Amino acid sequence: MNIGTVLASRRDGKSHSREEIEFLVRGCVDGSIPDYQLSAWLMAAYLNPLNAQETAWLTLAMAGSGVRLDLSPLPKPWVDKHSTGGVGDKTSLVLLPLLASCGLTVVKMSGRGLGITGGTLDKLASIPGFRTDLSPSELVAQAARIGIALTGQSPELAPADKVLYALRDATGTVSSIPLIVSSVLSKKLAGGAETVVLDVKCGSGAFMKNLDEARALASALRDAAEICGLKTRIAVTDMSRPLGSAVGNALEVREAWPVLAGVQGMCLPTMRFRGLCLDLAAITLAASGIVEDEAEGRAMAEIALSSGAAIRKGREWLCAQGAAEDAIVHPERLPISPVQVTQACPHAGYLAGIDAGAVGEAVVELGGGRKKKTDTVDPSVGVCLLRDVGESVAEGDPLFTVHAASDDAAREAACRVLKGVSWSSEPVEPAPALIERL
Amino acid sequence: MNIGTVLASRRDGKSHSREEIEFLVRGCVDGSIPDYQLSAWLMAAYLNPLNAQETAWLTLAMAGSGVRLDLSPLPKPWVDKHSTGGVGDKTSLVLLPLLASCGLTVVKMSGRGLGITGGTLDKLASIPGFRTDLSPSELVAQAARIGIALTGQSPELAPADKVLYALRDATGTVSSIPLIVSSVLSKKLAGGAETVVLDVKCGSGAFMKNLDEARALASALRDAAEICGLKTRIAVTDMSRPLGSAVGNALEVREAWPVLAGVQGMCLPTMRFRGLCLDLAAITLAASGIVEDEAEGRAMAEIALSSGAAIRKGREWLCAQGAAEDAIVHPERLPISPVQVTQACPHAGYLAGIDAGAVGEAVVELGGGRKKKTDTVDPSVGVCLLRDVGESVAEGDPLFTVHAASDDAAREAACRVLKGVSWSSEPVEPAPALIERL
Repeated sequence: MNIGTVLASRRDGKSHSREEIEFLVRGCVDGSIPDYQLSAWLMAAYLNPLNAQETAWLTLAMAGSGVRLDLSPLPKPWVDKHSTGGVGDKTSLVLLPLLASCGLTVVKMSGRGLGITGGTLDKLASIPGFRTDLSPSELVAQAARIGIALTGQSPELAPADKVLYALRDATGTVSSIPLIVSSVLSKKLAGGAETVVLDVKCGSGAFMKNLDEARALASALRDAAEICGLKTRIAVTDMSRPLGSAVGNALEVREAWPVLAGVQGMCLPTMRFRGLCLDLAAITLAASGIVEDEAEGRAMAEIALSSGAAIRKGREWLCAQGAAEDAIVHPERLPISPVQVTQACPHAGYLAGIDAGAVGEAVVELGGGRKKKTDTVDPSVGVCLLRDVGESVAEGDPLFTVHAASDDAAREAACRVLKGVSWSSEPVEPAPALIERL
Repeated sequence: MNIGTVLASRRDGKSHSREEIEFLVRGCVDGSIPDYQLSAWLMAAYLNPLNAQETAWLTLAMAGSGVRLDLSPLPKPWVDKHSTGGVGDKTSLVLLPLLASCGLTVVKMSGRGLGITGGTLDKLASIPGFRTDLSPSELVAQAARIGIALTGQSPELAPADKVLYALRDATGTVSSIPLIVSSVLSKKLAGGAETVVLDVKCGSGAFMKNLDEARALASALRDAAEICGLKTRIAVTDMSRPLGSAVGNALEVREAWPVLAGVQGMCLPTMRFRGLCLDLAAITLAASGIVEDEAEGRAMAEIALSSGAAIRKGREWLCAQGAAEDAIVHPERLPISPVQVTQACPHAGYLAGIDAGAVGEAVVELGGGRKKKTDTVDPSVGVCLLRDVGESVAEGDPLFTVHAASDDAAREAACRVLKGVSWSSEPVEPAPALIERL
């Protein structure tokens, strides 16, 4: 076996054998295949995409390229959750402690945000003291103790994915569906999960801009997971507008916490976010076999929120990972930006759209996201939407608030967001958060 | 401008602007674009090939990436010659001094052989003392003095091509026609030539295995050269069987020298080689304007051979580049292998084919070629064909001689060559050496 024949085969659109894919992945990790050959293979794989079987082999080989978490000391069922990333997507902050409070064991590795899609790790890092660097053994030990643990991506798990991802990022080959699938699933397999809920975001604020693309990714994830023997539930969810009210790291934690605490009477965007959390919880609880069906799962999740079980688990989790007591009890004391500007509605009418891409870009420009990997993020900045698509608004109604480091930055961000807002004179039927399921 | 957008554009099959191509070539040379991004671009360019205009821009940018030879001190016309490479292709050894003896200024950079296609530089290096490392200034000075100079590829000329070629070789992207075209023509442009004769070989012993591929390369060369303002004449020539009798470095010099000296009564394969040299000389002389038409060019070349002018120029050339006096006067004293074995014809019949690929591989296995760049070649080994396709042979007739380092190696090579020989009971019309012209 040599890299020349593997490259030629991909270039010519032939199928790889399992041995060829394992050879490639070994070469990534031991350095025997240089970057320039791997990147040529990645471009060939972008233009001549891997089939489902090749994708599954790549997934398994990458999952086996480093340490695999051994969750066997932990009570079953073991669940994990992954979102393809979106604007205002703080689902993990609610869903993970909620599931743990229902008796599931939740072990998750999360990534940092890049571009307009935020990262769970950045959101949690806005909580003073919160550790995002648990080692694999700390992770398992904490999950054994309290049923939930989350950490950043360990270099020991799926190291081949780390090598290939860095090259994909540098070579314009990130957006290949089979490569996305193998990257996502290999980390889930290496993380030891049994049941994984995959949230494929769809719209201007997501990687997949339309339903066709999102469906293609969702079905590729399903097919490869099936071959790999991983139990998945896949939801395609709306990212044409931001999820919930808050976009920005500390702001999103501040929005998630009351939801977890079962607080009533929130704004419509937050209610929509809460609804998606309950949908995903119901799907996960049913898939893990802890309840008979999703209706029962949803009821169980509702009770966990309203009974205080979920927020207690959330506090226990933050505390276990080192968060400051004050921040846990008073999330309103998380970092606050020096400037807050509320934008009034310039038109009357029905809100027809709040473009997630525009809001995401505004928050990146405010310093709440990264343009490149080495950027640091400002946890305090962001945008809070006060009204939702479908609502009837009057001229002058408060529409959104910008949290910024300066007046100029706030003004600029408000302009960007406003450009993404559209109105209609006719009533508008807002898109549901959960579009479809696989 | 950034490499990300250039990569995405090639990946998506869009056309590059001239600025994008110049950015890429600059990045090759100054190291600002890392190998792994260049190789991803090469694979994208292999799968989404450059159009004629892009190929010409790449050619010009690579030609301008380093030193360009200034031939202005030399008498015009300035000619250069390039072959895409074949088995037994020693044309340059005869054609260059022949053209110089007719009054043209010949300045050429040649490459070493790799795989079954030999390199002119290796053939000349079998002559004791012959220098293949003239600097650009030595090259021009020698051409000014005697009208002919040849050297290995200078790292100072078209350095971008050197970077890209090494990556193409490592990434399975050598055989892209636009990349071949820009590599060939950029070196010709940097070498300062005015008229270039391009010999596109076609058949099992060449890079282009069939006439369609060879025609595609020939017309891509013509189109790009035209946009670059380079005067070219392009010949598609047969490489289904070896060119001439000898295949192997010193053996080829020994075959070429009598042809240059106008010796009569050679075997049919050598006569065929001589015919192609005269065809190419006629084309070049006519293209350079030194004669009215090709008929006149052919007559001039015939006279140069028969009058001794060509061999005198050849000796002057070798002498100027340091070749030992003895080797120049007595080419029969060039390195000789310890073993010579002549293979008898196992069948009677008409010789229908002598596969160039099989002969080329046999010579590489004998040590006369390189499997990888760092291999050293044995100048003495090779194969000499004694009969040509189309001849009627009797069982037991001497068919070819193997020159080898050992009896075992000779036996093995004879087997390989014999597997490539085919017979027919019907008369066979052999393919002409010159198939067609563009």
